[in-house]
Amino acid sequence: MRLINKDEINNLESRKRAALINSLIGVKAANMIGTQDQQSVHNLSLISSLFHLGASPAMFGFVIRPDSVARDTLNNLRMHPFLTINHVNSNIVKNAHQTSARYDSEVSEFDKCELESEYLNDHPAPFVKESKIKFSAKMLREIKIPENGTHILICEIIDVHLAPSTLGDDFFIDITKTDTVGVSGLDQYLDLKALGRLSYAKPKMALKWLKL
Amino acid sequence: MRLINKDEINNLESRKRAALINSLIGVKAANMIGTQDQQSVHNLSLISSLFHLGASPAMFGFVIRPDSVARDTLNNLRMHPFLTINHVNSNIVKNAHQTSARYDSEVSEFDKCELESEYLNDHPAPFVKESKIKFSAKMLREIKIPENGTHILICEIIDVHLAPSTLGDDFFIDITKTDTVGVSGLDQYLDLKALGRLSYAKPKMALKWLKL
Repeated sequence: MRLINKDEINNLESRKRAALINSLIGVKAANMIGTQDQQSVHNLSLISSLFHLGASPAMFGFVIRPDSVARDTLNNLRMHPFLTINHVNSNIVKNAHQTSARYDSEVSEFDKCELESEYLNDHPAPFVKESKIKFSAKMLREIKIPENGTHILICEIIDVHLAPSTLGDDFFIDITKTDTVGVSGLDQYLDLKALGRLSYAKPKMALKWLKL
Repeated sequence: MRLINKDEINNLESRKRAALINSLIGVKAANMIGTQDQQSVHNLSLISSLFHLGASPAMFGFVIRPDSVARDTLNNLRMHPFLTINHVNSNIVKNAHQTSARYDSEVSEFDKCELESEYLNDHPAPFVKESKIKFSAKMLREIKIPENGTHILICEIIDVHLAPSTLGDDFFIDITKTDTVGVSGLDQYLDLKALGRLSYAKPKMALKWLKL
């Protein structure tokens, strides 16, 4: 095994340190966040830090760095706390990655990245039409992390929109049926293939792959 | 598209709501957290909520629900804030999933789930020997989320240990070279295949798949 100790990490040139630490935690969900500013300019931003917070109430969180491209997203949410989350699928990987370019605030990433916006069920923020699993949300709170000035945004899920083929009778969403992709580090995209679903784990009980 | 609106989500039977909301955000990294209690009993727990917080200092966060199997992990970290994060690979998917069973506090999941513990570079928490990408960390702070009583734990990365074949000259870790898996929802495991790495996104510049 190769050891990269704390001193070596601290002394790495900043691009190398960013590459290492961004790819260290494993695969991340690739999503696009849609928001709208007060002049009704759409903003769309790739985000890979979404995490599950709870099902009841239905909540999630994500991270925004103040110096990142997503700063427009943060500014918009402070004015108007509604957003959409849109899965990236293999057909729109390049379009989604392009939303991470530093466009001016008055520019809509939908136009520049050739993605179509749509409004669904009276939600005030725009969805990505090409996305096959997407949901609307409201930001509830912002938590600043003193060690590095990042913000964790805590959100509540409102409505879910998805391709019917992905939804099982048990309400599990099979993301492999819509070619949803993952991302590792800052720029590697990953295709996802189902190994299977495992039975509920209990002490002294052998696990089984579920037949679905 | 199928709409599942807020009322339908709220009225879902709790297992269905958990299945839906847990699988909604997309693929999650499958990791195991190693800790140690004051009687030196090892604890190992599957965790799928890790998120990147920043590269300088090298930080990440994760979520623990107070009613989950990971409550032993939280208790241990409050006494002794050192932990390890260990990637799940395709050879140890069942062992890793089995760590999510509710074992008594005085039981080591390493023994019950047939995983070997090891200590590396004087770090006080145990690593999973079978894991090919792993790192040590220290918990810096705990943030309680009032809406649902979950805790977000903020951690600093100490040392990284990995199979040399995964580390590129640019310090990007290619997790597909060690068969690291992802997880969707509570029980679906996913194999990861590289689509490729995309060039840095800039306005008015066409993206390219990088040749590596």
